[in-house]
Amino acid sequence: MIVGIFDSGLGGLTVVKEFKRKIPNASFIYLGDTARVPYGTRSAETIRKFAEEDTQFLVDKNVDLILVACNTVSSLAIDVVKKQSSVPVYSVIEPAIRKALDITKNNKIGLVGTRATVNSDAYKEVILRSHASMLVPLIEEGFISGPELDLFIARYLAGFIAKVDTLILGCTHYSIIKDQISNYLGGSIDLVDPAVELVNEISSKIIVDDKSIEKYYLTDVNKRFLETAQMFLGEDISNKTEKVSL
Amino acid sequence: MIVGIFDSGLGGLTVVKEFKRKIPNASFIYLGDTARVPYGTRSAETIRKFAEEDTQFLVDKNVDLILVACNTVSSLAIDVVKKQSSVPVYSVIEPAIRKALDITKNNKIGLVGTRATVNSDAYKEVILRSHASMLVPLIEEGFISGPELDLFIARYLAGFIAKVDTLILGCTHYSIIKDQISNYLGGSIDLVDPAVELVNEISSKIIVDDKSIEKYYLTDVNKRFLETAQMFLGEDISNKTEKVSL
Repeated sequence: MIVGIFDSGLGGLTVVKEFKRKIPNASFIYLGDTARVPYGTRSAETIRKFAEEDTQFLVDKNVDLILVACNTVSSLAIDVVKKQSSVPVYSVIEPAIRKALDITKNNKIGLVGTRATVNSDAYKEVILRSHASMLVPLIEEGFISGPELDLFIARYLAGFIAKVDTLILGCTHYSIIKDQISNYLGGSIDLVDPAVELVNEISSKIIVDDKSIEKYYLTDVNKRFLETAQMFLGEDISNKTEKVSL
Repeated sequence: MIVGIFDSGLGGLTVVKEFKRKIPNASFIYLGDTARVPYGTRSAETIRKFAEEDTQFLVDKNVDLILVACNTVSSLAIDVVKKQSSVPVYSVIEPAIRKALDITKNNKIGLVGTRATVNSDAYKEVILRSHASMLVPLIEEGFISGPELDLFIARYLAGFIAKVDTLILGCTHYSIIKDQISNYLGGSIDLVDPAVELVNEISSKIIVDDKSIEKYYLTDVNKRFLETAQMFLGEDISNKTEKVSL
Protein backbone atom coordinates (compact mmCIF):
# COMPACT_ATOMS: atom_id res chain seq x y z
CA MET A 1 0.00 0.00 0.00
CA ILE A 2 1.32 3.42 -1.00
CA VAL A 3 0.03 6.50 0.77
CA GLY A 4 0.00 9.75 -1.19
CA ILE A 5 0.51 12.91 0.86
CA PHE A 6 0.39 16.37 -0.65
CA ASP A 7 0.68 19.99 0.33
CA SER A 8 1.08 23.38 -1.31
CA GLY A 9 4.73 23.28 -0.32
CA LEU A 10 6.76 21.92 2.56
CA GLY A 11 4.30 22.53 5.43
CA GLY A 12 2.84 19.05 4.94
CA LEU A 13 6.18 17.57 5.95
CA THR A 14 4.95 18.05 9.54
CA VAL A 15 2.33 15.41 8.67
CA VAL A 16 5.04 13.23 7.13
CA LYS A 17 7.12 13.54 10.28
CA GLU A 18 4.22 12.37 12.42
CA PHE A 19 3.36 9.65 9.89
CA LYS A 20 6.91 8.26 9.96
CA ARG A 21 7.03 8.39 13.75
CA LYS A 22 3.74 6.60 14.18
CA ILE A 23 3.88 4.13 11.27
CA PRO A 24 7.52 3.41 10.51
CA ASN A 25 8.10 1.46 7.28
CA ALA A 26 4.80 2.48 5.71
CA SER A 27 5.26 3.31 2.04
CA PHE A 28 4.44 6.84 0.97
CA ILE A 29 5.12 9.48 -1.61
CA TYR A 30 4.94 13.19 -0.91
CA LEU A 31 4.07 15.92 -3.39
CA GLY A 32 4.93 19.52 -2.54
CA ASP A 33 3.92 22.20 -5.05
CA THR A 34 6.92 24.33 -4.15
CA ALA A 35 6.82 26.19 -7.48
CA ARG A 36 3.45 27.72 -6.61
CA VAL A 37 3.40 27.85 -2.81
CA PRO A 38 1.70 29.58 -0.97
CA TYR A 39 -1.88 28.59 -1.78
CA GLY A 40 -3.43 30.37 1.21
CA THR A 41 -3.31 33.85 -0.30
CA ARG A 42 -4.87 32.89 -3.65
CA SER A 43 -8.49 32.72 -4.85
CA ALA A 44 -10.65 29.64 -4.36
CA GLU A 45 -10.74 29.15 -8.14
CA THR A 46 -6.95 28.98 -8.38
CA ILE A 47 -6.62 26.78 -5.29
CA ARG A 48 -9.13 24.32 -6.76
CA LYS A 49 -7.28 24.19 -10.08
CA PHE A 50 -3.98 23.53 -8.31
CA ALA A 51 -5.60 20.87 -6.07
CA GLU A 52 -6.92 19.07 -9.16
CA GLU A 53 -3.44 18.95 -10.69
CA ASP A 54 -1.87 17.80 -7.41
CA THR A 55 -4.41 14.99 -7.10
CA GLN A 56 -3.96 13.88 -10.70
CA PHE A 57 -0.24 13.53 -10.08
CA LEU A 58 -0.85 11.19 -7.13
CA VAL A 59 -3.49 9.24 -9.07
CA ASP A 60 -0.96 8.70 -11.86
CA LYS A 61 1.45 7.36 -9.24
CA ASN A 62 -1.16 4.74 -8.25
CA VAL A 63 -1.44 5.68 -4.60
CA ASP A 64 -3.93 3.70 -2.51
CA LEU A 65 -4.93 6.46 -0.14
CA ILE A 66 -4.53 10.24 -0.12
CA LEU A 67 -3.76 12.50 2.83
CA VAL A 68 -4.40 16.16 2.12
CA ALA A 69 -1.73 17.68 4.34
CA CYS A 70 -2.74 21.26 3.50
CA ASN A 71 -5.49 23.06 5.40
CA THR A 72 -6.10 25.48 2.54
CA VAL A 73 -6.82 22.66 0.07
CA SER A 74 -8.76 20.76 2.74
CA SER A 75 -10.91 23.84 3.35
CA LEU A 76 -11.58 24.90 -0.23
CA ALA A 77 -11.06 21.96 -2.55
CA ILE A 78 -11.58 18.65 -0.77
CA ASP A 79 -14.48 17.88 -3.17
CA VAL A 80 -12.10 18.39 -6.10
CA VAL A 81 -9.61 15.91 -4.61
CA LYS A 82 -12.33 13.33 -3.97
CA LYS A 83 -13.79 13.71 -7.44
CA GLN A 84 -10.39 13.38 -9.08
CA SER A 85 -9.43 10.16 -7.29
CA SER A 86 -11.14 6.84 -6.62
CA VAL A 87 -9.15 6.06 -3.47
CA PRO A 88 -10.00 7.15 0.10
CA VAL A 89 -9.16 10.78 0.82
CA TYR A 90 -8.49 12.21 4.28
CA SER A 91 -8.20 15.86 5.15
CA VAL A 92 -6.61 17.58 8.14
CA ILE A 93 -9.87 19.24 9.11
CA GLU A 94 -12.20 16.59 10.59
CA PRO A 95 -9.64 14.95 12.91
CA ALA A 96 -8.72 18.39 14.28
CA ILE A 97 -12.34 19.35 14.86
CA ARG A 98 -13.09 16.01 16.56
CA LYS A 99 -10.10 16.48 18.88
CA ALA A 100 -11.10 20.08 19.65
CA LEU A 101 -14.67 19.06 20.49
CA ASP A 102 -13.27 16.30 22.67
CA ILE A 103 -11.01 18.51 24.79
CA THR A 104 -12.90 21.80 24.95
CA LYS A 105 -14.44 22.49 28.36
CA ASN A 106 -16.87 25.23 27.42
CA ASN A 107 -17.27 24.65 23.67
CA LYS A 108 -15.24 27.72 22.83
CA ILE A 109 -12.96 26.69 20.00
CA GLY A 110 -10.81 29.07 18.00
CA LEU A 111 -9.13 28.69 14.61
CA VAL A 112 -5.98 30.26 13.27
CA GLY A 113 -4.98 29.62 9.65
CA THR A 114 -4.31 31.14 6.25
CA ARG A 115 -6.65 33.81 4.94
CA ALA A 116 -8.19 31.33 2.48
CA THR A 117 -8.80 28.78 5.25
CA VAL A 118 -10.38 31.13 7.78
CA ASN A 119 -12.53 32.75 5.08
CA SER A 120 -13.85 29.36 3.94
CA ASP A 121 -16.93 27.54 5.19
CA ALA A 122 -14.86 24.77 6.76
CA TYR A 123 -14.48 24.57 10.54
CA LYS A 124 -18.10 25.51 11.24
CA GLU A 125 -17.67 24.56 14.91
CA VAL A 126 -15.29 27.38 15.79
CA ILE A 127 -16.56 30.56 17.46
CA LEU A 128 -13.55 32.78 16.73
CA ARG A 129 -11.14 32.77 13.81
CA SER A 130 -8.12 34.78 12.76
CA HIS A 131 -5.85 34.51 9.79
CA ALA A 132 -2.13 34.68 10.49
CA SER A 133 -0.89 35.29 6.98
CA MET A 134 2.67 36.23 7.82
CA LEU A 135 3.40 33.06 9.79
CA VAL A 136 3.89 30.87 6.70
CA PRO A 137 6.50 33.11 5.06
CA LEU A 138 8.16 33.69 8.46
CA ILE A 139 8.47 29.95 9.13
CA GLU A 140 9.66 29.24 5.58
CA GLU A 141 12.29 31.96 6.01
CA GLY A 142 13.52 30.28 9.19
CA PHE A 143 12.09 32.76 11.70
CA ILE A 144 10.94 29.93 13.98
CA SER A 145 11.91 31.75 17.17
CA GLY A 146 13.04 35.24 18.15
CA PRO A 147 11.57 38.73 18.35
CA GLU A 148 10.16 38.79 14.81
CA LEU A 149 8.13 35.63 15.33
CA ASP A 150 7.00 36.72 18.80
CA LEU A 151 5.76 40.05 17.47
CA PHE A 152 3.55 38.33 14.91
CA ILE A 153 2.33 35.61 17.27
CA ALA A 154 1.17 38.34 19.65
CA ARG A 155 -0.47 40.29 16.84
CA TYR A 156 -2.42 37.33 15.52
CA LEU A 157 -3.22 35.43 18.73
CA ALA A 158 -3.91 38.13 21.35
CA GLY A 159 -7.58 38.16 20.37
CA PHE A 160 -8.05 34.53 21.39
CA ILE A 161 -6.99 35.01 25.03
CA ALA A 162 -9.92 34.69 27.46
CA LYS A 163 -12.21 34.08 24.48
CA VAL A 164 -11.50 30.40 23.69
CA ASP A 165 -10.16 27.44 25.65
CA THR A 166 -9.06 25.43 22.61
CA LEU A 167 -7.26 26.63 19.49
CA ILE A 168 -6.96 24.66 16.25
CA LEU A 169 -3.66 25.30 14.45
CA GLY A 170 -5.30 25.38 11.05
CA CYS A 171 -2.16 25.26 8.93
CA THR A 172 0.38 22.45 8.92
CA HIS A 173 3.23 24.99 9.05
CA TYR A 174 2.22 26.03 12.54
CA SER A 175 3.24 22.68 14.07
CA ILE A 176 6.80 23.94 13.73
CA ILE A 177 6.17 26.86 16.11
CA LYS A 178 3.76 25.09 18.49
CA ASP A 179 6.06 25.70 21.47
CA GLN A 180 6.36 29.41 20.74
CA ILE A 181 2.58 29.70 20.45
CA SER A 182 2.15 27.74 23.67
CA ASN A 183 4.61 29.99 25.47
CA TYR A 184 2.76 33.09 24.35
CA LEU A 185 -0.64 31.74 25.39
CA GLY A 186 0.84 30.66 28.73
CA GLY A 187 -1.15 27.47 29.10
CA SER A 188 -4.51 29.23 29.06
CA ILE A 189 -5.52 27.65 25.74
CA ASP A 190 -5.13 24.02 24.60
CA LEU A 191 -3.69 23.62 21.11
CA VAL A 192 -4.86 21.10 18.52
CA ASP A 193 -2.21 20.01 16.02
CA PRO A 194 -3.90 18.67 12.85
CA ALA A 195 -0.80 16.72 11.79
CA VAL A 196 -0.94 14.65 14.97
CA GLU A 197 -4.71 14.17 14.82
CA LEU A 198 -4.82 13.18 11.16
CA VAL A 199 -2.14 10.54 11.58
CA ASN A 200 -3.80 9.25 14.76
CA GLU A 201 -7.04 8.81 12.89
CA ILE A 202 -5.72 7.06 9.80
CA SER A 203 -2.94 4.94 11.29
CA SER A 204 -5.14 1.84 11.66
CA LYS A 205 -6.01 1.99 7.96
CA ILE A 206 -2.43 1.79 6.73
CA ILE A 207 -1.13 -1.58 5.59
CA VAL A 208 2.65 -1.84 5.90
CA ASP A 209 4.14 -3.96 3.12
CA ASP A 210 7.56 -5.52 3.02
CA LYS A 211 9.12 -2.91 0.83
CA SER A 212 9.06 0.63 2.08
CA ILE A 213 8.81 3.42 -0.49
CA GLU A 214 9.70 6.93 0.59
CA LYS A 215 9.85 9.56 -2.11
CA TYR A 216 9.47 13.33 -2.26
CA TYR A 217 8.28 15.01 -5.47
CA LEU A 218 8.61 18.77 -5.63
CA THR A 219 7.66 21.19 -8.41
CA ASP A 220 10.61 23.41 -7.55
CA VAL A 221 13.85 22.49 -5.86
CA ASN A 222 16.14 25.33 -4.88
CA LYS A 223 19.14 25.81 -2.67
CA ARG A 224 17.11 26.54 0.42
CA PHE A 225 15.02 23.40 0.04
CA LEU A 226 17.25 21.15 2.14
CA GLU A 227 17.36 23.72 4.92
CA THR A 228 13.61 24.09 5.01
CA ALA A 229 12.90 20.36 4.66
CA GLN A 230 15.34 19.68 7.48
CA MET A 231 13.45 22.18 9.64
CA PHE A 232 10.09 20.53 8.95
CA LEU A 233 11.15 16.92 8.99
CA GLY A 234 14.26 16.89 11.14
CA GLU A 235 16.24 14.90 8.60
CA ASP A 236 17.95 15.15 5.23
CA ILE A 237 15.81 13.89 2.34
CA SER A 238 17.83 15.19 -0.60
CA ASN A 239 18.56 11.75 -2.04
CA LYS A 240 14.86 10.83 -2.01
CA THR A 241 13.78 13.98 -3.82
CA GLU A 242 12.79 14.49 -7.45
CA LYS A 243 11.72 17.59 -9.36
CA VAL A 244 8.50 17.20 -11.34
CA SER A 245 6.14 19.32 -13.42
CA LEU A 246 2.38 19.24 -12.93
CA MET B 1 2.34 51.69 -29.70
CA ILE B 2 1.48 49.33 -26.88
CA VAL B 3 3.95 48.83 -24.07
CA GLY B 4 3.91 45.45 -22.30
CA ILE B 5 4.90 45.51 -18.64
CA PHE B 6 5.18 42.38 -16.55
CA ASP B 7 6.04 41.27 -13.05
CA SER B 8 5.78 38.19 -10.87
CA GLY B 9 2.83 39.83 -9.13
CA LEU B 10 1.79 43.33 -8.22
CA GLY B 11 5.21 44.82 -7.36
CA GLY B 12 5.61 45.99 -10.95
CA LEU B 13 2.68 48.32 -10.46
CA THR B 14 5.22 50.72 -8.93
CA VAL B 15 6.71 50.90 -12.44
CA VAL B 16 3.22 51.40 -13.89
CA LYS B 17 2.58 54.24 -11.46
CA GLU B 18 5.76 56.00 -12.54
CA PHE B 19 5.02 55.25 -16.22
CA LYS B 20 1.55 56.79 -15.99
CA ARG B 21 2.88 59.83 -14.15
CA LYS B 22 5.64 60.48 -16.63
CA ILE B 23 3.93 59.45 -19.89
CA PRO B 24 0.20 59.99 -19.44
CA ASN B 25 -1.95 58.55 -22.24
CA ALA B 26 0.65 56.03 -23.35
CA SER B 27 -0.97 52.68 -24.15
CA PHE B 28 0.13 49.73 -22.06
CA ILE B 29 -0.90 46.33 -20.80
CA TYR B 30 0.30 44.85 -17.54
CA LEU B 31 0.74 41.17 -16.76
CA GLY B 32 1.03 40.09 -13.11
CA ASP B 33 1.56 36.38 -12.43
CA THR B 34 -0.36 36.61 -9.17
CA ALA B 35 -1.13 32.86 -9.16
CA ARG B 36 2.57 32.03 -8.80
CA VAL B 37 4.06 35.03 -7.01
CA PRO B 38 6.65 35.24 -5.45
CA TYR B 39 9.37 34.36 -7.94
CA GLY B 40 12.27 35.51 -5.75
CA THR B 41 12.33 32.42 -3.54
CA ARG B 42 12.28 29.88 -6.41
CA SER B 43 15.06 28.25 -8.42
CA ALA B 44 16.55 29.85 -11.53
CA GLU B 45 15.10 27.02 -13.64
CA THR B 46 11.55 27.71 -12.46
CA ILE B 47 11.94 31.49 -12.75
CA ARG B 48 13.15 31.10 -16.35
CA LYS B 49 10.20 28.86 -17.25
CA PHE B 50 7.75 31.36 -15.75
CA ALA B 51 9.50 34.26 -17.53
CA GLU B 52 9.14 32.45 -20.86
CA GLU B 53 5.41 32.01 -20.33
CA ASP B 54 4.98 35.62 -19.23
CA THR B 55 6.80 36.87 -22.32
CA GLN B 56 4.82 34.63 -24.67
CA PHE B 57 1.62 36.10 -23.28
CA LEU B 58 2.78 39.65 -24.10
CA VAL B 59 4.03 38.57 -27.54
CA ASP B 60 0.59 37.12 -28.27
CA LYS B 61 -0.90 40.50 -27.29
CA ASN B 62 1.30 42.17 -29.95
CA VAL B 63 3.10 44.58 -27.69
CA ASP B 64 5.72 46.83 -29.31
CA LEU B 65 8.09 47.05 -26.35
CA ILE B 66 8.53 45.11 -23.12
CA LEU B 67 9.40 46.45 -19.69
CA VAL B 68 10.50 43.74 -17.27
CA ALA B 69 9.25 45.29 -14.04
CA CYS B 70 10.59 42.47 -11.89
CA ASN B 71 14.16 42.44 -10.61
CA THR B 72 14.15 38.69 -10.14
CA VAL B 73 13.28 38.05 -13.81
CA SER B 74 15.63 40.84 -14.89
CA SER B 75 18.45 39.21 -12.91
CA LEU B 76 17.93 35.57 -13.89
CA ALA B 77 15.97 35.40 -17.13
CA ILE B 78 16.43 38.53 -19.23
CA ASP B 79 17.97 36.38 -22.00
CA VAL B 80 14.84 34.23 -22.01
CA VAL B 81 12.63 37.30 -22.41
CA LYS B 82 14.78 38.66 -25.24
CA LYS B 83 14.88 35.32 -27.04
CA GLN B 84 11.12 34.87 -26.75
CA SER B 85 10.25 38.27 -28.22
CA SER B 86 11.34 40.28 -31.26
CA VAL B 87 10.57 43.69 -29.76
CA PRO B 88 12.89 45.82 -27.59
CA VAL B 89 13.17 44.60 -23.99
CA TYR B 90 14.16 46.80 -21.05
CA SER B 91 14.99 45.56 -17.58
CA VAL B 92 15.05 47.41 -14.26
CA ILE B 93 18.71 46.62 -13.71
CA GLU B 94 20.79 48.76 -16.08
CA PRO B 95 19.01 52.07 -15.42
CA ALA B 96 19.42 51.51 -11.66
CA ILE B 97 23.11 50.70 -12.00
CA ARG B 98 23.71 53.75 -14.22
CA LYS B 99 21.99 56.00 -11.69
CA ALA B 100 23.92 54.47 -8.80
CA LEU B 101 27.25 54.95 -10.59
CA ASP B 102 26.21 58.52 -11.34
CA ILE B 103 25.45 59.53 -7.75
CA THR B 104 27.91 57.48 -5.71
CA LYS B 105 30.71 59.56 -4.23
CA ASN B 106 33.16 56.81 -3.33
CA ASN B 107 31.99 53.98 -5.62
CA LYS B 108 30.48 52.05 -2.72
CA ILE B 109 27.14 50.79 -3.96
CA GLY B 110 24.94 48.31 -2.11
CA LEU B 111 22.08 46.13 -3.30
CA VAL B 112 19.05 44.84 -1.43
CA GLY B 113 16.67 42.46 -3.19
CA THR B 114 15.11 39.01 -3.21
CA ARG B 115 17.30 36.00 -2.49
CA ALA B 116 17.24 35.02 -6.19
CA THR B 117 18.29 38.52 -7.26
CA VAL B 118 21.17 38.96 -4.80
CA ASN B 119 22.43 35.43 -5.51
CA SER B 120 22.48 36.07 -9.26
CA ASP B 121 25.33 37.44 -11.35
CA ALA B 122 23.48 40.64 -12.13
CA TYR B 123 24.52 43.92 -10.47
CA LYS B 124 28.24 43.21 -10.75
CA GLU B 125 29.03 46.82 -9.73
CA VAL B 126 27.82 46.48 -6.15
CA ILE B 127 30.23 45.86 -3.30
CA LEU B 128 27.74 44.70 -0.68
CA ARG B 129 24.47 42.81 -1.09
CA SER B 130 21.77 41.53 1.22
CA HIS B 131 18.55 39.73 0.52
CA ALA B 132 15.48 41.00 2.36
CA SER B 133 13.19 38.08 1.76
CA MET B 134 10.47 38.99 4.24
CA LEU B 135 9.90 42.47 2.81
CA VAL B 136 7.83 41.27 -0.18
CA PRO B 137 5.32 39.26 1.91
CA LEU B 138 5.22 42.06 4.50
CA ILE B 139 4.41 44.69 1.89
CA GLU B 140 1.86 42.45 0.18
CA GLU B 141 0.21 41.87 3.57
CA GLY B 142 -0.06 45.62 4.07
CA PHE B 143 2.69 46.02 6.65
CA ILE B 144 3.98 49.17 4.95
CA SER B 145 4.69 50.99 8.21
CA GLY B 146 4.77 50.13 11.91
CA PRO B 147 6.93 48.10 14.28
CA GLU B 148 6.87 44.88 12.24
CA LEU B 149 8.23 46.59 9.12
CA ASP B 150 10.78 48.60 11.13
CA LEU B 151 12.11 45.44 12.79
CA PHE B 152 12.79 43.82 9.42
CA ILE B 153 14.19 46.97 7.80
CA ALA B 154 16.71 47.17 10.65
CA ARG B 155 17.56 43.48 10.37
CA TYR B 156 18.20 43.59 6.64
CA LEU B 157 19.71 47.07 6.24
CA ALA B 158 21.88 47.59 9.34
CA GLY B 159 24.84 46.00 7.56
CA PHE B 160 24.89 48.71 4.88
CA ILE B 161 25.40 51.63 7.27
CA ALA B 162 28.88 53.16 7.00
CA LYS B 163 29.70 50.59 4.31
CA VAL B 164 28.00 52.09 1.24
CA ASP B 165 26.90 55.58 0.20
CA THR B 166 24.33 54.41 -2.36
CA LEU B 167 21.79 51.61 -2.11
CA ILE B 168 19.89 50.09 -5.03
CA LEU B 169 16.38 48.98 -4.08
CA GLY B 170 16.59 45.82 -6.13
CA CYS B 171 12.94 44.82 -6.01
CA THR B 172 10.04 46.88 -7.34
CA HIS B 173 8.07 46.21 -4.15
CA TYR B 174 10.51 48.28 -2.12
CA SER B 175 9.45 51.55 -3.79
CA ILE B 176 6.36 51.34 -1.59
CA ILE B 177 8.45 51.57 1.61
CA LYS B 178 11.14 53.95 0.32
CA ASP B 179 10.31 56.54 3.00
CA GLN B 180 10.56 53.99 5.82
CA ILE B 181 13.92 52.80 4.52
CA SER B 182 15.10 56.39 4.19
CA ASN B 183 14.02 57.16 7.75
CA TYR B 184 15.92 54.17 9.05
CA LEU B 185 19.11 55.05 7.15
CA GLY B 186 18.79 58.66 8.30
CA GLY B 187 20.08 60.29 5.12
CA SER B 188 23.46 58.57 5.30
CA ILE B 189 22.79 56.52 2.15
CA ASP B 190 21.23 57.63 -1.15
CA LEU B 191 18.54 55.31 -2.49
CA VAL B 192 18.09 54.32 -6.13
CA ASP B 193 14.53 53.43 -7.14
CA PRO B 194 14.60 51.23 -10.28
CA ALA B 195 10.99 52.07 -11.16
CA VAL B 196 11.86 55.76 -11.48
CA GLU B 197 15.11 55.10 -13.35
CA LEU B 198 13.62 52.63 -15.83
CA VAL B 199 10.80 54.97 -16.78
CA ASN B 200 13.21 57.92 -17.05
CA GLU B 201 15.35 55.96 -19.43
CA ILE B 202 12.64 54.64 -21.76
CA SER B 203 10.25 57.59 -21.78
CA SER B 204 11.72 59.11 -24.94
CA LYS B 205 11.16 55.83 -26.78
CA ILE B 206 7.42 55.71 -26.17
CA ILE B 207 5.12 56.90 -28.92
CA VAL B 208 1.77 58.07 -27.57
CA ASP B 209 -1.09 57.26 -29.98
CA ASP B 210 -4.53 58.78 -29.99
CA LYS B 211 -6.22 55.92 -28.30
CA SER B 212 -4.94 54.97 -24.88
CA ILE B 213 -5.08 51.32 -23.86
CA GLU B 214 -4.74 50.48 -20.18
CA LYS B 215 -5.36 46.89 -19.20
CA TYR B 216 -4.26 44.64 -16.34
CA TYR B 217 -4.04 40.87 -16.85
CA LEU B 218 -3.61 38.76 -13.73
CA THR B 219 -3.29 35.00 -13.35
CA ASP B 220 -5.17 35.11 -10.05
CA VAL B 221 -7.67 37.67 -8.82
CA ASN B 222 -8.74 37.40 -5.21
CA LYS B 223 -10.54 39.56 -2.73
CA ARG B 224 -7.41 41.29 -1.52
CA PHE B 225 -6.31 42.21 -5.02
CA LEU B 226 -7.99 45.63 -5.10
CA GLU B 227 -6.52 46.54 -1.73
CA THR B 228 -3.02 45.60 -2.81
CA ALA B 229 -3.29 47.18 -6.26
CA GLN B 230 -4.58 50.36 -4.63
CA MET B 231 -1.55 50.35 -2.34
CA PHE B 232 0.89 49.98 -5.24
CA LEU B 233 -0.81 52.20 -7.79
CA GLY B 234 -2.82 54.62 -5.70
CA GLU B 235 -5.98 54.05 -7.71
CA ASP B 236 -8.75 51.54 -8.36
CA ILE B 237 -8.16 49.41 -11.47
CA SER B 238 -10.80 46.74 -10.96
CA ASN B 239 -12.74 47.59 -14.12
CA LYS B 240 -9.58 47.37 -16.24
CA THR B 241 -8.62 43.92 -14.89
CA GLU B 242 -8.99 40.49 -16.45
CA LYS B 243 -8.07 37.03 -15.17
CA VAL B 244 -5.98 34.95 -17.58
CA SER B 245 -4.18 31.59 -17.67
CA LEU B 246 -0.63 31.25 -18.92
